[in-house]
Amino acid sequence: MDLNLEKSYAVGIDIGGTNTVFGIVDMRGTVIASDSIKTQAYEQADDYADVVCRKLTELIDANGGKEKIRGVGIGAPNGNYYTGAIEFTANLPWKGIVPLAAMFEERLGIPTALTNDANAAAVGEMTYGAARGMKDFIMITLGTGVGSGIVINGQVVYGHDGFAGELGHVIVRRENGRLCGCGRKGCLETYCSATGVARTARELLTARTEPSLLRSVPAEEITSKDVYDAAVKGDALANEIFRFTGTILGEALADFIAFSSPEAIILFGGLAKSGEYIFRPVQEAIDANVLPIYRGKAKLLMSELKDADAAVLGASALGWEVRS
Amino acid sequence: MDLNLEKSYAVGIDIGGTNTVFGIVDMRGTVIASDSIKTQAYEQADDYADVVCRKLTELIDANGGKEKIRGVGIGAPNGNYYTGAIEFTANLPWKGIVPLAAMFEERLGIPTALTNDANAAAVGEMTYGAARGMKDFIMITLGTGVGSGIVINGQVVYGHDGFAGELGHVIVRRENGRLCGCGRKGCLETYCSATGVARTARELLTARTEPSLLRSVPAEEITSKDVYDAAVKGDALANEIFRFTGTILGEALADFIAFSSPEAIILFGGLAKSGEYIFRPVQEAIDANVLPIYRGKAKLLMSELKDADAAVLGASALGWEVRS
Repeated sequence: MDLNLEKSYAVGIDIGGTNTVFGIVDMRGTVIASDSIKTQAYEQADDYADVVCRKLTELIDANGGKEKIRGVGIGAPNGNYYTGAIEFTANLPWKGIVPLAAMFEERLGIPTALTNDANAAAVGEMTYGAARGMKDFIMITLGTGVGSGIVINGQVVYGHDGFAGELGHVIVRRENGRLCGCGRKGCLETYCSATGVARTARELLTARTEPSLLRSVPAEEITSKDVYDAAVKGDALANEIFRFTGTILGEALADFIAFSSPEAIILFGGLAKSGEYIFRPVQEAIDANVLPIYRGKAKLLMSELKDADAAVLGASALGWEVRS
Repeated sequence: MDLNLEKSYAVGIDIGGTNTVFGIVDMRGTVIASDSIKTQAYEQADDYADVVCRKLTELIDANGGKEKIRGVGIGAPNGNYYTGAIEFTANLPWKGIVPLAAMFEERLGIPTALTNDANAAAVGEMTYGAARGMKDFIMITLGTGVGSGIVINGQVVYGHDGFAGELGHVIVRRENGRLCGCGRKGCLETYCSATGVARTARELLTARTEPSLLRSVPAEEITSKDVYDAAVKGDALANEIFRFTGTILGEALADFIAFSSPEAIILFGGLAKSGEYIFRPVQEAIDANVLPIYRGKAKLLMSELKDADAAVLGASALGWEVRS
């Protein structure tokens, strides 16, 4: 990081399907000002960019002006780092290829970079979090889906087309695998996302007759949070759901280690916050499945990005690195 | 590549379990002189290094002297690029950690780098072969085992410990997987190596009663070459063996694409030379299994390194890059 002290802030913009959150961040990862808008309220990407940039300019002006901002980073679903565009995402209101980085750069007059949310989280972790000082690690985001950001030699792996690192769509069950939103079967994401955990809960509750605290929740409304709450209360079935989920994740991580031999694997997102309930079976499955030369090497860590700020922090980390 | 024209050659040394082959290579990938010794004849690594370096010095002196050599590259099983050492390999006569790069550098007075054979093949392919001009590709070596060399952003992926890229040991069958030499079950290598193909042949010949040319070969002596020869003659069972092998390899490659989104996957080694018999099922399995955003992107290519020279070429390619 070039310590240009004149430019002591970065801007992070996290574009989610529901909300867009943006903020100004200092070098230690403190969000000094932030705001948000509803993403879905803007049918036209141009209108959307106008509003975000107007509100952002207000924040910037109130905090020392544009001269203090080193760069702008954007995290967005299907964001392509190479093109600076969002490409054909189903989760946002705009169709086709939207060159968001250029649209923001034009309006703000500040260099802007864009990537997908999991890659932004990885850069955030490397800049402010659990991966500080690491050059080789894998970030796994356990949310509605399973995302990943892979860092090798200190650089995010974007691949030849900008779309590398979709480890949530590695196939972990070839026989009778669960149907995935991507149209294929057996993807990691169908088992180890928050929705995957809820799916496992429903399956187990149907297949078994034993009592469980989860039986008091209507099946279609069960969330991974319900499973966690039940596990904390000692519910055996809830514990089994975590063990099932963690085992599949650990088996997959053992294979990922054979790819890039990372110093650490960092788990991020709601499910990661279930702590030992998920970390213990994951670690046991890694140990049982990893190739002997890698055994005991890769650390399994929890994200150190503060939850409420994580998305903005991740995006802002990209802002420190953007080239003008 | 720094075009220091004074130093117009590189030396490649390929250390195999049986033979060690070494040669002088020019920038276009022509082996201008080479020699070999029996690896197993030397119980002491020091004696071995003495003999290789003496014979190599003869070659070097006959071709313009040490001043013409830019660097020495060594490819060896379990070679660690970071340490320049061979670490605990079962396939060579020397035990423990053998700092071969330093031993050769000391004797030759030429900067020396070392890596494992599959990584050396990847650098060779990037320097002289099918991956010229590529920055993101995966090399898969199909030999007695299955090895891999992964290149991202123009650099071989070594991981935090120097041992990244063991894709032959990604687990492709979790239920009833074949026992692997690594002690685990279901590794890619147990299905898609030359020995894996022979194993498939024996299994299918036992499970089926239909006639096959392969029935004329004693079961324990069947090789992947026999399967190829039978397939060329139109043998249905031999074709089925290739289809089974290629499907498993293609399924695995589809997952590898989700990791690094390479421009190409390059197949190297005896089995790759079975041409369409293996390429067609591999390509079909990739197309059927890859995540939609990657579909039709990664090229499936055959190595362009000449067979007899491939090992020396791969190792020599490392010699161009070694830092003094």
